[in-house]
Amino acid sequence: MENEVAYITKPKGFKAAGIHAGLKANGNRDLGLVVSDCPCVVSGVYTSNLVKGHSLVRTIDRINSGVKPRAVIVNTRIANSGVGKPGLEDAEVMAKAVAESLGITSDEVLTGSTGTIGVRLPIEKIVNAVPSLVSELSDSEESAHNAALAIMTTDTKPKEATATITLKDGKEVTISAIAKGSGMIHPNLATMISIFTTDASIDKALLDKLLKKAVSHTFNRVSVDGDTSVCDMVVIMANGMAEATIKEGSEDENLFGEALTSISNDIARMIAADGEGATKFVEIEVFGARNNDDAKLIVTSVARSPLVKTAIFGEDANIGRVLTAVGYSGAKFNPDKIDILINDMLFFHDGICVDFDEDEAGKLLAEHDIHVVIKLCEGEAYDRMYTCDFSYDYVKINGSYRT
Amino acid sequence: MENEVAYITKPKGFKAAGIHAGLKANGNRDLGLVVSDCPCVVSGVYTSNLVKGHSLVRTIDRINSGVKPRAVIVNTRIANSGVGKPGLEDAEVMAKAVAESLGITSDEVLTGSTGTIGVRLPIEKIVNAVPSLVSELSDSEESAHNAALAIMTTDTKPKEATATITLKDGKEVTISAIAKGSGMIHPNLATMISIFTTDASIDKALLDKLLKKAVSHTFNRVSVDGDTSVCDMVVIMANGMAEATIKEGSEDENLFGEALTSISNDIARMIAADGEGATKFVEIEVFGARNNDDAKLIVTSVARSPLVKTAIFGEDANIGRVLTAVGYSGAKFNPDKIDILINDMLFFHDGICVDFDEDEAGKLLAEHDIHVVIKLCEGEAYDRMYTCDFSYDYVKINGSYRT
Repeated sequence: MENEVAYITKPKGFKAAGIHAGLKANGNRDLGLVVSDCPCVVSGVYTSNLVKGHSLVRTIDRINSGVKPRAVIVNTRIANSGVGKPGLEDAEVMAKAVAESLGITSDEVLTGSTGTIGVRLPIEKIVNAVPSLVSELSDSEESAHNAALAIMTTDTKPKEATATITLKDGKEVTISAIAKGSGMIHPNLATMISIFTTDASIDKALLDKLLKKAVSHTFNRVSVDGDTSVCDMVVIMANGMAEATIKEGSEDENLFGEALTSISNDIARMIAADGEGATKFVEIEVFGARNNDDAKLIVTSVARSPLVKTAIFGEDANIGRVLTAVGYSGAKFNPDKIDILINDMLFFHDGICVDFDEDEAGKLLAEHDIHVVIKLCEGEAYDRMYTCDFSYDYVKINGSYRT
Repeated sequence: MENEVAYITKPKGFKAAGIHAGLKANGNRDLGLVVSDCPCVVSGVYTSNLVKGHSLVRTIDRINSGVKPRAVIVNTRIANSGVGKPGLEDAEVMAKAVAESLGITSDEVLTGSTGTIGVRLPIEKIVNAVPSLVSELSDSEESAHNAALAIMTTDTKPKEATATITLKDGKEVTISAIAKGSGMIHPNLATMISIFTTDASIDKALLDKLLKKAVSHTFNRVSVDGDTSVCDMVVIMANGMAEATIKEGSEDENLFGEALTSISNDIARMIAADGEGATKFVEIEVFGARNNDDAKLIVTSVARSPLVKTAIFGEDANIGRVLTAVGYSGAKFNPDKIDILINDMLFFHDGICVDFDEDEAGKLLAEHDIHVVIKLCEGEAYDRMYTCDFSYDYVKINGSYRT
């Protein structure tokens, strides 16, 4: 893997576009499309929310039916959720418009929507915009970037990642991803839509396995506010156009899986860092937990605590709140054997607050990246979560989201 | 029960006081004391946090040892937590100072602390202040009110409640309570200290049972921010001075239990309404859940959602967020059979957003009391939770709590 320019159309045989279809009031791009030159093996991971958006329900249906899709269209501003049967019909109309413009079947088009719940899609606007969206399709970096912009909601930055790997036989394979955050973010998953493309040739069962693995400790370890949305999905499209096959049990599987996880991790970090109103990126790690469940409970509890997150926003060394959040996490541990460090500075040792230097602590907490480390003496389990601080702007953004 | 002036010394044989001992920088009262003329039967319910404050650990110890306490002292500003063995010693010193001033044993003195974690108590200031605290003790409404003021942290209002009941034999029994909120509030319990007094004569086992029952659907159904503190306690002292005995299995047990629950409920509502930065009181009810566990999961999930709470703060009818929070609560239900009402106005019917009037919705959401009702068709289970909205001031208060 090298450090390279990230764009969703870098894998061979993919085109993208993003335009303004009249959904966002500010005139920004709000309709994105990614298309493959040929049918793809597709895997997806979706929200665990019992309530699911209609566009997502349709996508899950298509992927499960075994069709080999060629396109994903995503609109922002309206989640297409909580509107009943008409919502499913709107998703179908949106897919059909894309299919007709591309000359493929609507079964080959996946759909994603994100935004306000309980409002019908302005489907005419979308249908009317599809021909110009399709006419903008290209494999240029600019078009790829436009697609990344078009799927943004309250995100302040587009999220793009790419990795190119060289397989054992010397062939190159590329994986790219775009994603949107940035509120209603908590495992599993977030109000998060991410589209991956790759030109590798890969069996669906293997792609399912590797995607699930990549998501589990990356996308599923991001928390912005503890809310899990109804529209979340990660979809990967593998079109095989690099003419390089990833075989199960091979070294290539490891290479490909690592690259997929690495990109997922990059995107997960970008989502946390760009959480709604975020002024800081926060990474929480626990070492020495009793078991994996406890480790996850602990990082989730700390990442979710509004008190921890407001203290980090205020750059206040109120580290007792981290101790408190570990204490009520539900995990079992000896409170007299816990160490807590922030950016390598020890604040609690054996459950007791050390006599730290306030000025030095203030300097550490003024940094943009805050790294919380919790050490227990219960076992070997480790976990990690990405989050952000809780600011005035989070309240502002979410106090008037619909307006 | 009648509507009466609420004060902690209303039950016979109790005195109270609250003074400024130099802990709060603003000169407000920060040390409170409640004393009974004779030894009391005492029950307590404490935080479920694995990390417990040293003053609380000492109190649990004393109550479990079977002593009959006569006094509770509570300091604010410093939680006396996370400082190790010296913290337990400080709690003991604090109790001893009170005992000496009152001429009782230190075992008869319970201790409570609330505030910043990881900092030693300024124990000299407390010890020096105890004689004047004791000299202020009286059964007047004013002294009772001072005690209620002295246990406040970020509370904006003291919390006091009283109920007088007439037993079957015509004797009167009174129960009173004071409490502090107001952040780090979530079952079980909150950063919440509440002291109850009663002049009833009652067996410890029965008092334990009735207190636990009273707390379960009142104090344990308040959420301000999802954080459960290390210092929470509800303690009730029954001194028997009304010369009226509550016997197990009697009608009096029901009367007394109902009064206790009613006061607990009043205090719980006060705590939610005075949550840190709160501009609104929010009550969340679910009907028709599959079972009690699911009902609790649902009200907890909605009460905890920062997105629901910021939308209520912003008076934005973004009711899809309530649907979303129910969806990820972990409870099982049919998403096509859910109704959601706010202040009696229907927003979702059978999982579909109804075509509501924005102006009317705006008027409803501008009210101070917001009542969210969720109706499912899964069973008969019901639950309820009290919370508040999430405002700029929550972030402000908690971004610089220690300063």
